[in-house]
Amino acid sequence: MTRPDAPPGAVRQGSLREWNLAVVLGRIAAADRPPSRAELAAGTGLTRATVSAVVEDLLAGRLVREAEPTPRTGAGRPSRGLVLAADGPAGLGLEVNVDYLAACVVDLTGRVRHHTVHRADLRPVSPAEALARLAGLAARARADAARQGLTLVGAALAVPGLVDDAGLVRLAPNLGWRDVPVPALLAGQPPLTARVDGVPPLVVDNEANLAALGELHAGPGVPASFLHISGEVGIGAGIVLDGSLFRGARGWSGEIGHVPVRPEGRPCRCGGQGCLETYAGQEAILAAAGLAGADLPADTATTRLAELAAADDPAASRALADAGTALGIAVAGVVNLLDLDTVVLGGGYAPLTPWLRPPVLAEVSRRVLTAAWSPVTVRPAALGGAAAAVGGAGSVVGRILARPAGWLGRRP
Amino acid sequence: MTRPDAPPGAVRQGSLREWNLAVVLGRIAAADRPPSRAELAAGTGLTRATVSAVVEDLLAGRLVREAEPTPRTGAGRPSRGLVLAADGPAGLGLEVNVDYLAACVVDLTGRVRHHTVHRADLRPVSPAEALARLAGLAARARADAARQGLTLVGAALAVPGLVDDAGLVRLAPNLGWRDVPVPALLAGQPPLTARVDGVPPLVVDNEANLAALGELHAGPGVPASFLHISGEVGIGAGIVLDGSLFRGARGWSGEIGHVPVRPEGRPCRCGGQGCLETYAGQEAILAAAGLAGADLPADTATTRLAELAAADDPAASRALADAGTALGIAVAGVVNLLDLDTVVLGGGYAPLTPWLRPPVLAEVSRRVLTAAWSPVTVRPAALGGAAAAVGGAGSVVGRILARPAGWLGRRP
Repeated sequence: MTRPDAPPGAVRQGSLREWNLAVVLGRIAAADRPPSRAELAAGTGLTRATVSAVVEDLLAGRLVREAEPTPRTGAGRPSRGLVLAADGPAGLGLEVNVDYLAACVVDLTGRVRHHTVHRADLRPVSPAEALARLAGLAARARADAARQGLTLVGAALAVPGLVDDAGLVRLAPNLGWRDVPVPALLAGQPPLTARVDGVPPLVVDNEANLAALGELHAGPGVPASFLHISGEVGIGAGIVLDGSLFRGARGWSGEIGHVPVRPEGRPCRCGGQGCLETYAGQEAILAAAGLAGADLPADTATTRLAELAAADDPAASRALADAGTALGIAVAGVVNLLDLDTVVLGGGYAPLTPWLRPPVLAEVSRRVLTAAWSPVTVRPAALGGAAAAVGGAGSVVGRILARPAGWLGRRP
Repeated sequence: MTRPDAPPGAVRQGSLREWNLAVVLGRIAAADRPPSRAELAAGTGLTRATVSAVVEDLLAGRLVREAEPTPRTGAGRPSRGLVLAADGPAGLGLEVNVDYLAACVVDLTGRVRHHTVHRADLRPVSPAEALARLAGLAARARADAARQGLTLVGAALAVPGLVDDAGLVRLAPNLGWRDVPVPALLAGQPPLTARVDGVPPLVVDNEANLAALGELHAGPGVPASFLHISGEVGIGAGIVLDGSLFRGARGWSGEIGHVPVRPEGRPCRCGGQGCLETYAGQEAILAAAGLAGADLPADTATTRLAELAAADDPAASRALADAGTALGIAVAGVVNLLDLDTVVLGGGYAPLTPWLRPPVLAEVSRRVLTAAWSPVTVRPAALGGAAAAVGGAGSVVGRILARPAGWLGRRP
């Protein structure tokens, strides 16, 4: 949850005060241990007096708080370190996927303070009905956030499809959505607690994009560039390059589910043929493993599949090996094209990583020109299935960290 | 040939004079018509006196010259416009490919002043011998440049393979090169006329990368983001995003030739199977068209193939249709992943575009999720087979434009 540096344009556009607020808050967010005012002055080049004034503003606005005093080690008053506050602004993350709805709240420190997942097959349900149910989840999240003293300042909604700048879902093939005006259908929902300059009330974005952002901020040890693959009924990818999400020329990048892996193979819902989704999507894997008729919720079915594979069940093992091979063919193409060295398996793939990793790596080592001297790492996502909603909520909080002046001047 | 803006760091690192030189030269390079000193002052915010002093330096260094005076339109002295000079520094572009060597010289205005292509199958030849022959071409280019009053300040060498930062060719599968230390083998070659701070004497780079850069600077109408595909014996891609080449996490992006299009298909020289190259590389197309045994040089064979296709020869038409389908499968994957809207067919593909375009577009429209509302354009490269050497020479010239102070302070 650390994008500490304010954009270079800010110093020109905003006032000096805005800039100083962002610089000091960014330092506090990025620090390994709570910095004192003196350390902040030394680290930023600002005067002690300026830092003190800025910190007062941040304390008053519940963006930071003083940490417990460090134990005395010598003479004089112990210095009070500063940390991000966990009782000020928070972000709301929402997700509509093929077989679940989710809502979560993330505070300024990046901690998840509320998380609800509602399992249901949403394909037979109209977009308006699905969004009405989601609004119900959002209302519960809001109430829970308020109970915890948090102020929701913005929401990000993840959908498994292609979204334009106005929040119109152009196409979500696995949901059967086409040209769904999400903001209009959600009008008035989610009613946020405070309006903040620089934080849109609602952003609609692709699920795989938000999941990749969630993973990027999931903690230390995350590389700056990686491919994040969300394996649900559909398969989406988020391409992170140098710490930023690559969205493509028109914002529609990452459709790895429709990369052809068997060009004359199975027909796909998108109208194409042999798309990765038809071989390595959740339904394809469960069908191959003989779990399609079991009518289990997807997460239960995935757990069951992992249990069967762990017990060397032949059908489950073969289903995962075949899906991993298909996934590996697509991943090999991506690595040949983009030269990424880390592949993160997210969503429903995360718990299946032990079985998907070997065939993916086998295809990569067969097919990637640089594989011999530039190994590729395949690892499970830290956030798993929750990543998109958490990433969405985190992106809201990130906007506050990048421009705290907006929050400090908010309208109730 | 216009990267006019000096990097943001320059104002901090260099002196104010260096910055002013770059800003004024950049304005002159980017202008639609020759700007006067007064127009330069108005456009840059510098004083008339500063602009005059900077222009004197640029004139003395043969970086700019005064254009013919504009016809008098009113009272007073006609203003003298300034244009880039064509008799100062120049870049040397070199290329080793599977079946040809090339050398070219590009002047500061972006014009190609020398161009030689030597056709020969270089697979049976050792790397040292191939580079010795290339040094011969370079010497001829240098002599020709000197005759024209040009000063060569740096060279860029294109190879169809993976190159590390030190110029070591890690792997060029179609040439059969592995771990070839090109700078050491070319030591003393090419001896350039002047050493210039900020311009390395020799840069070794991937052929597809330099070809894409050549195309980017080939003239007006080139979009800021595109996929450039060089179709030679091997197939490489340059991915240009927002006017910059995307090199990947480790510099080895763009290996579209090894994207699997028939995963269980033909074996490839790289050790993989079903790589695009084995279906749409030059040799695969010529073999399918029945031209493999003809033992023609590749450009002659391509011309012959185009003639046959134009005359509706069934084998030639089928060979191009099949290659276009394979290419389209790979391109569909790239567009799904990166959301690019322009595909440029370069190298040996350029003259075959009329026959490759329809099957490529057919696969794109079948397989790309956004194709229905976001059309993809497929067009031939402006530079064709010369692109990599021209792009390489242009990249040298680009370094002079970005930092003219290095040239002005050069050591003879």
